[in-house]
Order: sequence, then structure tokens, then C-alpha cells
Amino acid sequence: MENKHYDRPFTVDTADVITSDLLEPIEYAYKSKRSIDIKITQPEYTSVCPMTGLPDNGTIIIEYRPDAHLVELKSLKYYLMQYRNVGMFYEHVVNKILDDMVSVINPLYMKVTGEFTPRGGISSVGSAEYIKP
Amino acid sequence: MENKHYDRPFTVDTADVITSDLLEPIEYAYKSKRSIDIKITQPEYTSVCPMTGLPDNGTIIIEYRPDAHLVELKSLKYYLMQYRNVGMFYEHVVNKILDDMVSVINPLYMKVTGEFTPRGGISSVGSAEYIKP
Amino acid sequence: MENKHYDRPFTVDTADVITSDLLEPIEYAYKSKRSIDIKITQPEYTSVCPMTGLPDNGTIIIEYRPDAHLVELKSLKYYLMQYRNVGMFYEHVVNKILDDMVSVINPLYMKVTGEFTPRGGISSVGSAEYIKP
Amino acid sequence: MENKHYDRPFTVDTADVITSDLLEPIEYAYKSKRSIDIKITQPEYTSVCPMTGLPDNGTIIIEYRPDAHLVELKSLKYYLMQYRNVGMFYEHVVNKILDDMVSVINPLYMKVTGEFTPRGGISSVGSAEYIKP
Amino acid sequence: MENKHYDRPFTVDTADVITSDLLEPIEYAYKSKRSIDIKITQPEYTSVCPMTGLPDNGTIIIEYRPDAHLVELKSLKYYLMQYRNVGMFYEHVVNKILDDMVSVINPLYMKVTGEFTPRGGISSVGSAEYIKP
Amino acid sequence: MENKHYDRPFTVDTADVITSDLLEPIEYAYKSKRSIDIKITQPEYTSVCPMTGLPDNGTIIIEYRPDAHLVELKSLKYYLMQYRNVGMFYEHVVNKILDDMVSVINPLYMKVTGEFTPRGGISSVGSAEYIKP
Amino acid sequence: MENKHYDRPFTVDTADVITSDLLEPIEYAYKSKRSIDIKITQPEYTSVCPMTGLPDNGTIIIEYRPDAHLVELKSLKYYLMQYRNVGMFYEHVVNKILDDMVSVINPLYMKVTGEFTPRGGISSVGSAEYIKP
Amino acid sequence: MENKHYDRPFTVDTADVITSDLLEPIEYAYKSKRSIDIKITQPEYTSVCPMTGLPDNGTIIIEYRPDAHLVELKSLKYYLMQYRNVGMFYEHVVNKILDDMVSVINPLYMKVTGEFTPRGGISSVGSAEYIKP
Amino acid sequence: MENKHYDRPFTVDTADVITSDLLEPIEYAYKSKRSIDIKITQPEYTSVCPMTGLPDNGTIIIEYRPDAHLVELKSLKYYLMQYRNVGMFYEHVVNKILDDMVSVINPLYMKVTGEFTPRGGISSVGSAEYIKP
Amino acid sequence: MENKHYDRPFTVDTADVITSDLLEPIEYAYKSKRSIDIKITQPEYTSVCPMTGLPDNGTIIIEYRPDAHLVELKSLKYYLMQYRNVGMFYEHVVNKILDDMVSVINPLYMKVTGEFTPRGGISSVGSAEYIKP
Ligand SMILES: [Ca+2]
Ligand SMILES: [Ca+2]
Ligand SMILES: [Ca+2]
Ligand SMILES: [Ca+2]
Ligand SMILES: [Ca+2]
Ligand SMILES: [Ca+2]
Ligand SMILES: [Ca+2]
Ligand SMILES: [Ca+2]
Ligand SMILES: [Ca+2]
Ligand SMILES: [Ca+2]
Ligand SMILES: [Ca+2]
Ligand SMILES: [Ca+2]
Ligand SMILES: [Ca+2]
Ligand SMILES: [Ca+2]
Ligand SMILES: [Ca+2]
Ligand SMILES: [Ca+2]
Repeated sequence: MENKHYDRPFTVDTADVITSDLLEPIEYAYKSKRSIDIKITQPEYTSVCPMTGLPDNGTIIIEYRPDAHLVELKSLKYYLMQYRNVGMFYEHVVNKILDDMVSVINPLYMKVTGEFTPRGGISSVGSAEYIKP
Repeated sequence: MENKHYDRPFTVDTADVITSDLLEPIEYAYKSKRSIDIKITQPEYTSVCPMTGLPDNGTIIIEYRPDAHLVELKSLKYYLMQYRNVGMFYEHVVNKILDDMVSVINPLYMKVTGEFTPRGGISSVGSAEYIKP
Repeated sequence: MENKHYDRPFTVDTADVITSDLLEPIEYAYKSKRSIDIKITQPEYTSVCPMTGLPDNGTIIIEYRPDAHLVELKSLKYYLMQYRNVGMFYEHVVNKILDDMVSVINPLYMKVTGEFTPRGGISSVGSAEYIKP
Repeated sequence: MENKHYDRPFTVDTADVITSDLLEPIEYAYKSKRSIDIKITQPEYTSVCPMTGLPDNGTIIIEYRPDAHLVELKSLKYYLMQYRNVGMFYEHVVNKILDDMVSVINPLYMKVTGEFTPRGGISSVGSAEYIKP
Repeated sequence: MENKHYDRPFTVDTADVITSDLLEPIEYAYKSKRSIDIKITQPEYTSVCPMTGLPDNGTIIIEYRPDAHLVELKSLKYYLMQYRNVGMFYEHVVNKILDDMVSVINPLYMKVTGEFTPRGGISSVGSAEYIKP
Repeated sequence: MENKHYDRPFTVDTADVITSDLLEPIEYAYKSKRSIDIKITQPEYTSVCPMTGLPDNGTIIIEYRPDAHLVELKSLKYYLMQYRNVGMFYEHVVNKILDDMVSVINPLYMKVTGEFTPRGGISSVGSAEYIKP
Repeated sequence: MENKHYDRPFTVDTADVITSDLLEPIEYAYKSKRSIDIKITQPEYTSVCPMTGLPDNGTIIIEYRPDAHLVELKSLKYYLMQYRNVGMFYEHVVNKILDDMVSVINPLYMKVTGEFTPRGGISSVGSAEYIKP
Repeated sequence: MENKHYDRPFTVDTADVITSDLLEPIEYAYKSKRSIDIKITQPEYTSVCPMTGLPDNGTIIIEYRPDAHLVELKSLKYYLMQYRNVGMFYEHVVNKILDDMVSVINPLYMKVTGEFTPRGGISSVGSAEYIKP
Repeated sequence: MENKHYDRPFTVDTADVITSDLLEPIEYAYKSKRSIDIKITQPEYTSVCPMTGLPDNGTIIIEYRPDAHLVELKSLKYYLMQYRNVGMFYEHVVNKILDDMVSVINPLYMKVTGEFTPRGGISSVGSAEYIKP
Repeated sequence: MENKHYDRPFTVDTADVITSDLLEPIEYAYKSKRSIDIKITQPEYTSVCPMTGLPDNGTIIIEYRPDAHLVELKSLKYYLMQYRNVGMFYEHVVNKILDDMVSVINPLYMKVTGEFTPRGGISSVGSAEYIKP
């Protein structure tokens, strides 16, 4: 019962290929009147498991309450696409997305959740939160 | 791999074509006894994305606690139909519906939510709240 | 594009055909020991829209915490059947059911909810509450 | 363990109140080119059980292949509304709808199905077919 | 439109055929360390309606936080089977199961819920709670 | 690891308590015009497993094409209730229901299906058919 | 009980604003080897009901077996967007889409289905087929 | 990015530990009248993957038409339990179950299907058939 | 109605074959910045019922808030696989997994839940919690 | 309303990076006795759209009837992973997978289906078939 060895047919990048520059803020026109609760879902996220070198697939959920800026959705799509061939633990992916989003749109509140599809039968979800001091 | 250019086959309007005049209040007969929690769902909302000029589709949910007036449902249907060819960010649509509804029926509480169908795989939801001072 | 006129093929009654006499209380045998939380669902409710004269269909949900009496379910079925050809706004139906139920079984707590099926794409839900003073 | 008697709070009509006159045909513009398969669903049908005098609720499904005429949907809604207070076995309702529809739009093929909600735990479905000779 | 009379083809028992003796406690090995939240679901419960003499079907849910004892599941199955031909209102069934379970395993907390399938279109749910003094 | 013995808390009957006399035919008014396809579902069927003496639960589905008679639904409910405390293999239950129904309403076609809930993780479905010679 | 009159807040176009020029064929590279079965679904279709002047919403499904050409999906999106403010019966919409698609990609087989959301409780589906002679 | 090695914490058996002796036939009482279609589902099947030595989980479905014998369900449960620690490709498992069942109950027809849960994201289903010559 | 005896076709182990050594911690890189909420689900858990000697199947859910360490998922898979042939009550399994996980990754918070599939119709869920002192 | 330009953050490959060498056949042990129907599902497929350079996501389904060989599932996983950064129309992807699989395991029958997630609201499915001559 040998376990044949395969090479992954693509190159794995490190996290420094990812830049928050792709994220574009847009002005929130109702800032003077009230805030708003926003939930964005990208069910087609993919990156690479640093233990196995194999693709990880999942859903990224971003919940936030803006201050003066919203995130432009198309720019967020391109930002998340940067993780495609990067090898990172999902617990760290969730934290990095949170840090980058907070640095660009400076919200009152934000929570980032990653729901990852099963590997060896086991699925997992991680979520991290930021509250403006 | 060129990305062919298409013209949108309809004219995009601005938000000033929308009037709260279409919204009709009806008297709430039990005002002297107790209030009531109401949730209205319109899953066939459509407007236009101001970034791409393409249709946005979604569900508008209005939750409120009336004071002396309810909103008449058919008048609400015609009010929401005014957004059909208007170009607005959904975060601002949700706020404008809230402002117009509050001005017409003057409720104790109201929350407006917009759930928008996926674009580039990404879906989003926004909701804004009003509490009578 | 003319919009043909139809007459509704049945007579619409007013709310005074409805009597709370049909509701029968039964004794709650465990009153001395503890109360109980009860939720009753009638998904086959129908009445008539007073704006259009057309049938309204929906689900009536009654949640309560009895004091000394329960409502007998078959008597509740006949009570709700009285609304079949009555023309009332659903926000007022919910309040009238609550008033009639409270007068007959005198509960510690009661909430009545009406969930109405879509009209012109729009669905709505209303719920009113009573707490024994 | 007595089984209390209740009177139904509305009058039950017989089938002769129903007229196929309410059904309006509209011209099928592509008759010369090809036919089309159509399926219409009315999930809010109600009539009265002739055994118990109690409301029957269900879904009426009409599938057909038109020849020269389609049925106008609003006229069909008013036609079906005529059964609201009529006492008929559902197996006969399905046949009567089929006869009336065939007489008005004269299709190449038609099937009428009635799906009735549970009574005493038991639900039932009946369907009858017509093929143009 | 006569409503034919049928005799129920089985004998209805009274509540005194039910004994809590069938319930068997087992020792909770982690009592000294921490408690645990347990939820048991029996979706195949049946008893008899005392108004109509007809079977009632439903789901019994038992949620508890043990002190020194757990309930053995097979003994619970046989305990609940005792209600099969007993005529009791479900609001009283829920209270009796709670009393019997508390007397045998003496928990820190327990809640018993009965969800009953529709009769005449109407379904209902009842739940009662116990907190160790 | 002993497997404690329990006695079933009710008496198990044999199949001869079941009589087809409870089944009532009603006239099919459209016999001269066309037949109809009927499907009846009783999801609250119960009988007893002859191997273990424990309740079996399941759904009985009767599909048929009548000749001159339909089965009256309330009579069918009482007929099926006769199996409540009878010990029979489900493969034989399905055949007995088919034989009794055929003898009373003499259909053009009939199929009886029993879908039984899991025992020891294993669920099973059986169905038998009759075609009028 | 008057039925207030509303004007639709947008202009309704006629079918001649729609051109099949927007549809772009792409070459099917495996034509010499085998054909392929393709099913395309656009759940965000909208046009206008010519009876009421109100929006119709639905899903357009195109199933085909190409000969030498496929349809490019982005061009199909822009083609279908042309119906947004056009007033047509859905039975005719389905036929027009079929005619336009067949003229541009000349398939071995094609079926167009339109599933329309409920109006007055009634939903409907229509589908038309083409087979290459 | 090393891939740590783990040893499986149980012994893997070969297929010869499995005996069809555990399967018990029971007589089919209606053999002289008609056959019956039976479908048995065991959703808690488990065996071991011979490539990786890891557990495989899935659902085994057995569909058959008996001649003179049925399979007793509890005996089938014990028969299937024999595969728990056996290392076999699922395509061969399905064939072995089919051979063993056919040898014991000699049916007119039998089909065995195995639906296996995802491994590395990939799920698979296999089914083999037997028809009595 | 005898209840045939079967021998379980595999050996049942005791809990001392299980070692927490298989669980591998990995460093949580964002410890200095913020914690994270993690939920891991293994729906393919199996062990053995100590009352019957038969397999128990279920889902193990681990929710935690790490301090300095995460659990490596593949190591968790192998850890849980150790229970495959062990005979333990599920209420004790949940506690043992919690103790072992806490000893290895020392989290701020952890909750372990076991959802077990039905036996004799009855399913059950148990969950235990740990909060860092 | 400008439409900002983004560059895709990864390199797109052409189809010649894909080799069928990764697919490993395994012997079908029951070839002499009977064939088997197999259905394999990979819901985590991804490649790149050659029109937009953006990721396409979908499910690949392979249904086949083997002759002398099965495909080893882990080798299939690595084979499909080769498409990750390749730019191909999905209609051609389905054909290429079919060609490669047929060349390696030479089945009696095979069908490959690709179900692709929505782009611009539009989803599509394609499937191609092979029958051994
Ligand atoms: Ca930027
Ligand atoms: Ca991983
Ligand atoms: Ca106004
Ligand atoms: Ca947009
Ligand atoms: Ca009274
Ligand atoms: Ca007419
Ligand atoms: Ca009836
Ligand atoms: Ca005892
Ligand atoms: Ca009789
Ligand atoms: Ca059994
Ligand atoms: Ca063109
Ligand atoms: Ca319309
Ligand atoms: Ca034997
Ligand atoms: Ca495997
Ligand atoms: Ca270790
Ligand atoms: Ca090779």
C-alpha cells in the first residue's frame, strides 16, 4: 500500500506578492447622516496549503461598518485574486485580509471570515475582528 | 485576449427622477393600543451599477414599527420601480429608500436592507437603520 | 395596453361577522407547577384584501405562554376560518386575532404573526405582542 | 372524549356558479412557425371538500401545447377564483378545469394537475390529460 | 353532505400505564470536571388525541445539563414507547416527560419540547423547562 | 457490555384484525370521458416489526388510475390506522394494502409503495404493482 | 374599496429595438470530432408585460447542440439586456430568442425556456424547440 | 513544505474476513402472486482505502426484485459491518456485495450502488447490476 | 418473535489506545495583534457504543479561540481516527477530546460538540466547554 | 462612469502544459464478470477564461463504464489541477478531458460534464460523450 508521489503542476508564491494597493476606497455619501452594515461574500476564493502545496478553496466573508469610505467591489475581486497561488495557512489569510482592508478604508468595525472546503473530510472556518479604537 | 466593448442598450437616469410622492401612507387603526413589527420583501428590485452601467439585481427588505401610519404595498411597488434605470451605488440606494420612507410614514423604527446578486462571483448586502428620536 | 376589469366572483364581508365565541379554552393541568411555551402554526389562512377585493393567503403563527387555560386547536381552526371572505388589512387582522385570543384564554404572554404570500412580487410579515399586566 | 360539532362559517356553492366565460384567449403569434410547451402554476387554489364542508387548499398546474391561442393569465386567475366557495371532489375539479380550458383555447395538448395539502396527514395529487384528436 | 362516523381500530389507554421505572440513569464520569449540554431527539413519537381518539405524531426533544447522571438512550426509547396508545393533550405530555426525567436523573437543567405534525392544517409546538433549585 | 432486555409496552396483533370493509369507494363522475392519475401519500403510517416487536414508521404512497371508483380519503385513513399494532414485514404490508384496495375500487392500475424510516442506520422502500387484466 | 391608478415610471419599447447583431459566434474547435450539449442559464432576465406595463422577471434557459459555432457568453448577456424595457408576451419572447440564436450560430438543436416569477400568485414557464432540418 | 508521515492507528484486513454466511434470507410470502421492488440504503458504510490506508465512508444502496426470498435487514447490517477494517477499492466492494447477495437470496434482479464521500475534493459513485438469466 | 444474536465482526478497544501525542500545534502568527475564532468540523467520526458493541457515527465540531497555538488539521484527523474501534459513551468522548486538545494547544476558549446519528430513531448531541482560567 | 483597468495578478498558460501522463489506470478486477457504472465529481475545478483572463470555477463530472481499467482518483486530482492557470473555453476543456481520459483507460462509455459558476449572472453547463466503437 504505497502512497505515490506527485508534483504540484504550478509554482507556489509567498505572501509578499500581495499588495493592498489594488483595494480602492469610494466615498460613503451618507457619512454625516448614519453608518450602514455591509456584508460581502466571495465564494470562489482559492489559495494554496503550505503543508501540502495543494489548492485550498473556500468562501471569504467581509462584514463591516464604514466610516468615510466603502470598498469598491471590483477592486476587492482583484485584491483577493492575488492569493490564488500563494501558500498561507487560512488562519493567517483571514488576518492579512483584515489588516489590508482596515489600512485602506479605515472602518468603524470589520470582521473577516474564511470558510474552507473539506480536506480529508475535515472543514474549517476562521474569523477575526477589528473595532476602531 | 482582447476584451470587446459593448454599449448598454438603455439610458441610465440619475437619482433625481425618484420621488417619494408615490409612497402612500394608510392609517394604523390600532395605534392607541399597541404597535406592530412589519417586514416587507421585494425580491425583484433592479437598478443600474454606476461603475459599469450594467443592471444590478437584488432584494429590498424593509422592517419597521409604525407610529400612526403604515405604507400601502402597491404604492411601495411603484416607488421602488422608479429605480429601474437609475445609476446608484447600492450603499446609497439603501439610505435613500430609508430617508423617503421615514419622511412619508414617520415610523417609530425602520431598517432597510438590500441584498444584491453576485457580480464577478462577489455578492453583497447593506442595511441602514432609523430610530425615532 | 388596456387593463381589463374583472369582478370578484364572491361577496366580501366586514369584520363584524367574526366572533371570538368559537374559541374554546381548555384547562392547563400543570398551572400550579410551571408554565409552558406554545407555538401554533396555521399555514392555510385566507382573507380578502380591502384595496383590491382579491384573496390574501398566508400563515398565521400564535406563540403564547398560558396562565390557567390553553386554546383548543379545533376551535381555533374554526375561529380562523371566519376570516375567509372578510376584507381587512393584514396589519389589522393580526391585532384582532390577538385581542380575541387574549380575551378568551387570558395568557401570561402572546404574540400573533401573519406571513402573507407575495403580491406584485412583494411579500410582508406583521406581528403584534401582548404581555399580561 | 366527545367530538364537539362546529358549523362552517360560510356558504358552500355548487359547481354551476363556475363559468368558462371568464377565460380569455390571446392569439399565439408563432403558430405558423412552431408550437411551444407552457406550464402554469397557481399555488393558491382553494375550494371546499363536499364530504366535510371544510376548505381544501392546493396547487393547480396547467401544462399545454397551444394551437392558435394562449390563455391570458389574469383571466385564468379570475376563472380559478370562482371555485373558492364551491364544494367539489378534487378529482372532479381537475376534470372540470381541463374541460373548460380545452373549450376556450382548443390546444394541441393539455394536462391539468391538482396537488392538495394534507388532511388527517394524507395528501393527494390528481392529473387528467387531453390530446387533440 | 353527511360526515360519516368511524370507530378508532385500537384501545386508548390513560396516563397511568406510563412508568418512569423504564428510564435508566448512567453515571456521568466527568461530573467533577465540568458539565455538558445534551440534546436528544426522538422524531418517531406517537400518542393519541384525547379530543378525537386519533393518533398524534411528533418529535420529542430533550435538552439537559446533567449533574451526576445521564439517561441511557435505549431505556429512553422504551419509556417514550409507553405513550403509543395513551390519550393525552400534548401540552400535558411535555410536562409529564419533564417530571419523569427530572425524578430519575436529577439534572442541573432540562427542557422538553414536543413538535406535533399538522391536524386540520394546524401544527403546534410546546416546551417546558426545569432549573435545579 | 450486556444488552439489557426490555418488554414492549403494548400488545402486538396479527394481520387478521385488518378488514378492507373500512375502505369506501366513491363514484368517478368522469369515467365516460377519461381516466385520471392519482397519488395519495400518508407519511404517518406505523405498524410493528415482527422480528423485534418494535414500532416501524414510514410513508405509504398509493398511485392509481381509477376505472369507475375513487377511494374516499377519510376511509383510507381509518383503513391504514388498523395496522398500528399489527406485526408484519413491510414487504408483506405493501402487498396486503394493494390486494385490499384493488378488491374495493377495482382500478385500471395501482402501485403501493412503503418507505420505512431507518433501523440500525438502514432504511428501506418496497413497492408492488397491479395492472387490470 | 377603490383601486388607485399609477403610471409606470419608465418608457416601454417595442420589439424592434432588439437586434441579433449583438450575438457573437465563436468557433467550436471539436466540430470534426463530436458535438457537445450546452445549457446556459440567465436568472436575471427582465422585460415588460404588454397587458399591465409592469416589469416581468424570470430565468431564460438556452439548451443547444452546436454545429460549427458556439455563442460567446458576454455577447449573449448584452443581447438579452435589450429586452429590459420591451413590452412582449413571454410566449413570444421565447420564440424570438430562439429565432435570433438559430440565425447566428446555426446549431444542430436548440431549446429556449423562459421561467417567469409569479404574478397574482400564478407563475408560468414556456419553452420552444428547433431541430436542424 | 514537508508532508509529515502518520501511521494509521488500526490494522487493515483483507477481503477474506468477509463471509456471506451472515446474510439471512426470509421467505417472500407473495411470490405466487407478484414480485416487489425493494430499495435498501445504508448511509453509514465504512471500509479502508487500499491506496492510502485511510477510512473510506459512504452509502451503500441495494435495489432488487426478489424471487422466493427477501434479505433480513438486521443480518444485512452485520454483513456490511464486516467491511469496516477491510482495504478494498470501492469499485470492487460494490461487485463483492452484489455477488454475495445474489448467492444468498437469488433475486430476479439486483443493483448495488456505493456513493463515497469526497477525498481531496473528489467524490465518486459506482453501481453494478445483476439480472437472473 | 425471537431476536437472533450476532457477534460484532471486529475487536473493541478501550480508551487507553488513544494518545494526544498525535495532535500537533502550529504557531499562531498574529498572537500579538488579535485572536481569531475557529470552527473545525469532522463529519466522518466513528467509534463503538459500549452498550451494544455496534458502531456509532457522528460529526465532531471543535470551536476555539487560540492563544499562541493552532491545531494542525491533518494531525487532528489522525488523532480522531484513533477512536474508530474504541468503546466509549459519546458524552465521555466529547470530554476526552476537549481535555486532549486543551492540553496540547492551550487555547483561550474551546467547545467540543458531538452530533450522533440516530439509533432506534433517537439522535443525540453533546457539547462541553473550556475557558482559560 | 469610467471602468478602471486591472491586470490579472498571475500568468495564464496555454493548453500544452497539460499532459495525460498524470492519469494512472488501475485494473478492474471484475472485467470478466460484468462492467460497472461510475460517476466521479470534482467540485473544485478552476481554469482561466481566455476572453477575460479571469478565473473560471466549476464542477467537473466524469461518468463512465470501464472495460479493463479504472482511473485512480488521486491521479485524476493531479491531472485536473494542471488546468488551474490555463486559458481555455470550457466547451473545449470538456472535450480535452474526455480525449485524455479515453486515451488512458479506454472505457466502454464515457461522458464528461463541466458546470461553470455564473459570470455576469449567466451560468453554463457543457457535456460531451464517447462510446467505444
Ligand atoms: Ca490603491
Ligand atoms: Ca489544508
Ligand atoms: Ca403621495
Ligand atoms: Ca456592481
Ligand atoms: Ca365559546
Ligand atoms: Ca370570454
Ligand atoms: Ca378533503
Ligand atoms: Ca429504573
Ligand atoms: Ca365498505
Ligand atoms: Ca424492522
Ligand atoms: Ca455580430
Ligand atoms: Ca404578466
Ligand atoms: Ca447464513
Ligand atoms: Ca480513496
Ligand atoms: Ca505531538
Ligand atoms: Ca501515467
